[in-house]
Amino acid sequence: MNVFETTESEVRSYCRSWPVVFDRAVGAHMYDESGREYLDFFAGAGALNYGHNNPVLKQAVVDYMMADRVTHSLDMNTVAKREFLETFRDIALAPRDLDYKIMFPGPAGANAVEAALKLARKITGRQSVINFTNAFHGMTLGALSVTGNSMKRGGAGIPLVHATPMPYDNYLDGKVEDFLWFERLLGDSGSGLNEPAAVIVETVQGEGGINVARAEWLRGLADLCKRHGMLLIVDDVQMGCGRTGPFFSFEQAGIVPDIVCLSKSIGGMGMPLALTLLRPELDVWEPGEHNGTFRGINPAFVASTAALREYWTDDTLEKGTLAKGEQIGRVLDDLAEAHGLKAKGRGLARGLQFADGDTAGAVCRAAFERGLLMETAGPEGEVAKLMPPLTVTEDEVEQGLSVVTEAVHAVLGKEKNA
Amino acid sequence: MNVFETTESEVRSYCRSWPVVFDRAVGAHMYDESGREYLDFFAGAGALNYGHNNPVLKQAVVDYMMADRVTHSLDMNTVAKREFLETFRDIALAPRDLDYKIMFPGPAGANAVEAALKLARKITGRQSVINFTNAFHGMTLGALSVTGNSMKRGGAGIPLVHATPMPYDNYLDGKVEDFLWFERLLGDSGSGLNEPAAVIVETVQGEGGINVARAEWLRGLADLCKRHGMLLIVDDVQMGCGRTGPFFSFEQAGIVPDIVCLSKSIGGMGMPLALTLLRPELDVWEPGEHNGTFRGINPAFVASTAALREYWTDDTLEKGTLAKGEQIGRVLDDLAEAHGLKAKGRGLARGLQFADGDTAGAVCRAAFERGLLMETAGPEGEVAKLMPPLTVTEDEVEQGLSVVTEAVHAVLGKEKNA
Amino acid sequence: MNVFETTESEVRSYCRSWPVVFDRAVGAHMYDESGREYLDFFAGAGALNYGHNNPVLKQAVVDYMMADRVTHSLDMNTVAKREFLETFRDIALAPRDLDYKIMFPGPAGANAVEAALKLARKITGRQSVINFTNAFHGMTLGALSVTGNSMKRGGAGIPLVHATPMPYDNYLDGKVEDFLWFERLLGDSGSGLNEPAAVIVETVQGEGGINVARAEWLRGLADLCKRHGMLLIVDDVQMGCGRTGPFFSFEQAGIVPDIVCLSKSIGGMGMPLALTLLRPELDVWEPGEHNGTFRGINPAFVASTAALREYWTDDTLEKGTLAKGEQIGRVLDDLAEAHGLKAKGRGLARGLQFADGDTAGAVCRAAFERGLLMETAGPEGEVAKLMPPLTVTEDEVEQGLSVVTEAVHAVLGKEKNA
Amino acid sequence: MNVFETTESEVRSYCRSWPVVFDRAVGAHMYDESGREYLDFFAGAGALNYGHNNPVLKQAVVDYMMADRVTHSLDMNTVAKREFLETFRDIALAPRDLDYKIMFPGPAGANAVEAALKLARKITGRQSVINFTNAFHGMTLGALSVTGNSMKRGGAGIPLVHATPMPYDNYLDGKVEDFLWFERLLGDSGSGLNEPAAVIVETVQGEGGINVARAEWLRGLADLCKRHGMLLIVDDVQMGCGRTGPFFSFEQAGIVPDIVCLSKSIGGMGMPLALTLLRPELDVWEPGEHNGTFRGINPAFVASTAALREYWTDDTLEKGTLAKGEQIGRVLDDLAEAHGLKAKGRGLARGLQFADGDTAGAVCRAAFERGLLMETAGPEGEVAKLMPPLTVTEDEVEQGLSVVTEAVHAVLGKEKNA
Repeated sequence: MNVFETTESEVRSYCRSWPVVFDRAVGAHMYDESGREYLDFFAGAGALNYGHNNPVLKQAVVDYMMADRVTHSLDMNTVAKREFLETFRDIALAPRDLDYKIMFPGPAGANAVEAALKLARKITGRQSVINFTNAFHGMTLGALSVTGNSMKRGGAGIPLVHATPMPYDNYLDGKVEDFLWFERLLGDSGSGLNEPAAVIVETVQGEGGINVARAEWLRGLADLCKRHGMLLIVDDVQMGCGRTGPFFSFEQAGIVPDIVCLSKSIGGMGMPLALTLLRPELDVWEPGEHNGTFRGINPAFVASTAALREYWTDDTLEKGTLAKGEQIGRVLDDLAEAHGLKAKGRGLARGLQFADGDTAGAVCRAAFERGLLMETAGPEGEVAKLMPPLTVTEDEVEQGLSVVTEAVHAVLGKEKNA
Repeated sequence: MNVFETTESEVRSYCRSWPVVFDRAVGAHMYDESGREYLDFFAGAGALNYGHNNPVLKQAVVDYMMADRVTHSLDMNTVAKREFLETFRDIALAPRDLDYKIMFPGPAGANAVEAALKLARKITGRQSVINFTNAFHGMTLGALSVTGNSMKRGGAGIPLVHATPMPYDNYLDGKVEDFLWFERLLGDSGSGLNEPAAVIVETVQGEGGINVARAEWLRGLADLCKRHGMLLIVDDVQMGCGRTGPFFSFEQAGIVPDIVCLSKSIGGMGMPLALTLLRPELDVWEPGEHNGTFRGINPAFVASTAALREYWTDDTLEKGTLAKGEQIGRVLDDLAEAHGLKAKGRGLARGLQFADGDTAGAVCRAAFERGLLMETAGPEGEVAKLMPPLTVTEDEVEQGLSVVTEAVHAVLGKEKNA
Repeated sequence: MNVFETTESEVRSYCRSWPVVFDRAVGAHMYDESGREYLDFFAGAGALNYGHNNPVLKQAVVDYMMADRVTHSLDMNTVAKREFLETFRDIALAPRDLDYKIMFPGPAGANAVEAALKLARKITGRQSVINFTNAFHGMTLGALSVTGNSMKRGGAGIPLVHATPMPYDNYLDGKVEDFLWFERLLGDSGSGLNEPAAVIVETVQGEGGINVARAEWLRGLADLCKRHGMLLIVDDVQMGCGRTGPFFSFEQAGIVPDIVCLSKSIGGMGMPLALTLLRPELDVWEPGEHNGTFRGINPAFVASTAALREYWTDDTLEKGTLAKGEQIGRVLDDLAEAHGLKAKGRGLARGLQFADGDTAGAVCRAAFERGLLMETAGPEGEVAKLMPPLTVTEDEVEQGLSVVTEAVHAVLGKEKNA
Repeated sequence: MNVFETTESEVRSYCRSWPVVFDRAVGAHMYDESGREYLDFFAGAGALNYGHNNPVLKQAVVDYMMADRVTHSLDMNTVAKREFLETFRDIALAPRDLDYKIMFPGPAGANAVEAALKLARKITGRQSVINFTNAFHGMTLGALSVTGNSMKRGGAGIPLVHATPMPYDNYLDGKVEDFLWFERLLGDSGSGLNEPAAVIVETVQGEGGINVARAEWLRGLADLCKRHGMLLIVDDVQMGCGRTGPFFSFEQAGIVPDIVCLSKSIGGMGMPLALTLLRPELDVWEPGEHNGTFRGINPAFVASTAALREYWTDDTLEKGTLAKGEQIGRVLDDLAEAHGLKAKGRGLARGLQFADGDTAGAVCRAAFERGLLMETAGPEGEVAKLMPPLTVTEDEVEQGLSVVTEAVHAVLGKEKNA
């Protein structure tokens, strides 16, 4: 037994899918300690949109550290934080006509969600929140209460209340018009629905199985929120920072959420950083009413600033993401048609839905054996998820897709429908 | 208005006490962008026990990054994680006869607490938890529910339930024998106390105002837990990693908690890292039952490993901490006697309690004007808190204490009791 | 100001609709202190199915009391309770092939609901309960949490959690197939729905606006419960004891609930009595685990026994209820057609739904002016509710319907659609 | 097996202590169906203060019913309700300088408590409530959450939150000054105690084991409530209506609660009736915000009015209660001294505390065998409770005490301490 087995808690999970010890990583590749190379279509669960050890980001961080500049500062002012704030404002917000205030809620996406929920409750004086079927928002108690997965919910050990699930886009297979049930409940003073403070939504559900909400559904939701005094919180932790093409995943729908949660790739190179963005009039926090130690990781500010400057001052990355997304989409469509599967996704968040979790797991294992890292998602793990770094090359995408195709064939045979 | 005022949320707070922009930092000193030097008796709220930009730790991290080794890995196996696990086991655990399993619950102390509470509830099948007056355990919903501060609790926007406060050591000024009330409630099937899954405690309450629990009180608590089937969780997020002298703050009392929460300085140089340590028989997690993106920040593993090897293979640091703690204690005792104040603390967690928060705040401002960073703690901010890096020199301590003395004199006059 | 205004709490409500002081009452009539007669289509909100001062019941109670027999006995054994148990078993249960155990949960319907919910949670180990839109189950905290009305819910002063509303039959106007949403949530481990202990349902929603569930919907619900291990609780407090024709309102659908709540008319002449009926295998209560002082009101046992013997040993009452129900239904259908309204109901639970609460209220006031007592129901009070005693005569029904017709004409004009 | 065993739920409990079938009852005596006589020191758990089938009350009810007057009226105005309101105001309130508004919250004590808690939360906007160790307030979810007994709390099947227990008078055996802990928590903004809406207290805890609060403790509590903006709710369900001597049990302490809960004997002859009394300025209810079917049981109004007129227009009953209470107290003191027991109580609420529940149960069984009904109370059932009707004669008290003495001797021997 190695130290992972003897000493690390049984809660560990990814290491069970990929039973090797990784050592080096560059761009879209990881290497285990024996030197074997893996093409990474996992990308740190979406935290590595700019690739492993991106040289621009890495150099900025190393230079910063070697100059003995402040690394850890909570919410003190630092030069690095000022540069980040200015850069984020000028590159991420202003060009999109967004004037959000920026809150540093703690190091992780769950902190961004916790802060968003607190604020929505404080502002509205209501306690209830609407989440969606198959949502994933995090593991701390507030974030977990709006997460769908029953195994993870059960881990709380207390009843998770204050949240009511509504059907995500197309959850009922198009049999029901959008928001029929939700709106009926809101409009009926006898419905028994506690008046919601907010609605929290992902534009594409990553952990939920790469479920894509249509733009018109998101617009309908934004409109419903406005009409019923509910704040709209977009959890862009996994789909933000360009994963679906544009910097924010909600841009395509033309909506402006009241609150936005960002994390994962915002820290640039896998450094913990999270933001809760607020419409300025919602910034009613008392100083220190929400705090935490790891809100001023300056290397993350530096990497994030570098990434914004490198990738978001023109539309090269966005276009590349969309193009490579379509490249993947075409292959997945073919596989889906050939094998009676379902291809899903947008931008570089892609999925292939199998009949069950066992099949999807077998395909991912077959891919791993062929040198491709790819994980499952969905309530039963029935979706193989393809999320390469956005900086992946078309050739690397091509190679990855070949492996995916081989893996599917290995598990399902060459042509189910042939 | 600068970008902090225009663009960062009103929730920011430390920057209001220290209205400068910091840029560089080495050891026990920080420097603002104008080059002014500050002696740091704040130490990143306890996350910088080894000082700013500690050269040994920094070099290890930079070397690691420059070699393109894996930075971000969730709970995949990496070489850096293996080294950390082995080092922590061999240096932090084994010499103290501890055989804890190590769980990575997320990047921050609140994650360690959330995981501890979940696990205690899962194991016992009970929902209620006992916390102590003036406890601080974090801002996410689970951690906040066991935190005492009413302003921060109010921020939740929902009733925080499932936790019942008990009096911390000496809370009732010695008028009541230890655990009289707590034990009576536990032993009375009609008391109305929901049977607790766990008790969560800090051995020294940092944010609560540098309140020190006596060793016999902690032993009494551990014994009470054992007799009533409650798990004992020690939150060592701020007081662990040597802050009170020994690596774990509970060593002095000779107790072995069921679960230990570590964070802050465990990441070495202010890098987000948190551990939940579990007695092996408590490791009943399902794989993935608790997870999160930022559980594999390899630079933090590297810095942590370097710190363990540099500082915890002999007792030099521990002895220095105790000696410098006494050095501070002597001066605080004198100030306390002279001004009718209360000196508090253990190791290098020290405090001087004033009549009210205004006075303590004025003293901290006076210290800041004289180049010393020191913050307030306690429910009304009535305690000036001295927490220098453990690597501070005796001379630096001496300088700091001169400033503290001057600041007290500036606010209270030279000799209140003279 | 009279004593009601000076001394009774502002919470009083029915007396505001009918601002007179009632004194005498016989059968389907009430008389105010000036001697004015009112035809009663309210029937004590369903507690007077056998009419006011029913001579058979009244004589039984008076004889019992005059013989100095035990009136109040908690859950001690008494002769009167034995007779009630035997009679209820032999007349209400056995002929319907029901073998329920009988629990006395307290004096009112809300107690029957509280006990049912407790038991369902105890048996299943789950906390969550499914209720339906526009449900009414009572005002105590457990019963209120499964009640829909937002004003009444708001009165709790704490968030009411642990219950999730589902659409009642035809709530979405036939646009959605039955249980599509409910079953999807149950079958999806990622839906975020906490696994329900039970479903609580009224076969006809009285307070909710005389909404009638179809037999096939009820059967579908019973089947869904069975497939997902949820207990089916029928709240027959208002619709039981023959209100819809048969003794139990669920008989028509051919279902056998796991738990049944009875109250209101079970006490015979408006005496407080409530029953929670349990399938025998669910009777896992500890002695005294649920109790209360007013569980042994022997005059209620006596009246109830007399009523069972008088009215439920043949089908005269049931047939009369159905016939008089149809008599009402025909007139309401005509009114509905003429005025673009909606006629609703089954048996002698009937309603006429207006455009809004103001109109329905005006109609009820116009009826009151003409000597008919009739109240509103529904989330906005938009339904005029007709619930005469089951012992009302056809002539009295005819008179009442004339008043209703006049009242509608007075408010809406003679022929909206003419 | 009889019908109780075959058909009544296992939850039944008193009938297990007294395995006979009662039939008749007059004054302080009950008779089983074989004609055997029992002296009743249980008095319907305090609901029969005026004795079984009190002739004055009974005749008033029978006359009322025989005249076909309104029996059931919800919160409609009736002549009987008017007389009750006027009589209660003139006899129970005005002479004591009380100007409470009267609310009819439902038929039972638990309803009075549920309404009191709702109102306190609505008024203060706070959710938390303080209850006391060994409190008993009822079995519905709101009332149960402030009840101490762990078996009964467990029956809820969900975590009971929103209430925090404080030590009842002398709970810590005089070792701690009154309210030391409670007041410290209230005054400390970091204590973690959610700000309480209200405190609910019994002046003598009946079910909790006949624990008597001293007048100065009650005054201290009232004062604490005033200083911290908490409403003081006295649950006088069991101890009101003269049980401790005066009409309200809190009169002796000279306090005026904000809200008072009455039930049990207020209905006169065991008829379900409950009142929630409110200081006029607290009557902020919306019409119908709390309601319920059984709020207008006119026979209970009639019996209650007759009892007020018969017993509370002079001090004969009160003096008799105090005298007979002392008569019992003397014998219990002697028994306590002789056997090392503890005599407890005030007025005609008396108890004898044994070493454990088995002993107290054995004594009650021995008493039953000798024709005396007496039940146990206290968290372990360790207290034999003596609560005869207030109308019991001195001779009957004497007889009862002889039986109690015999029963103690039968179980413990004649003279433990001799």
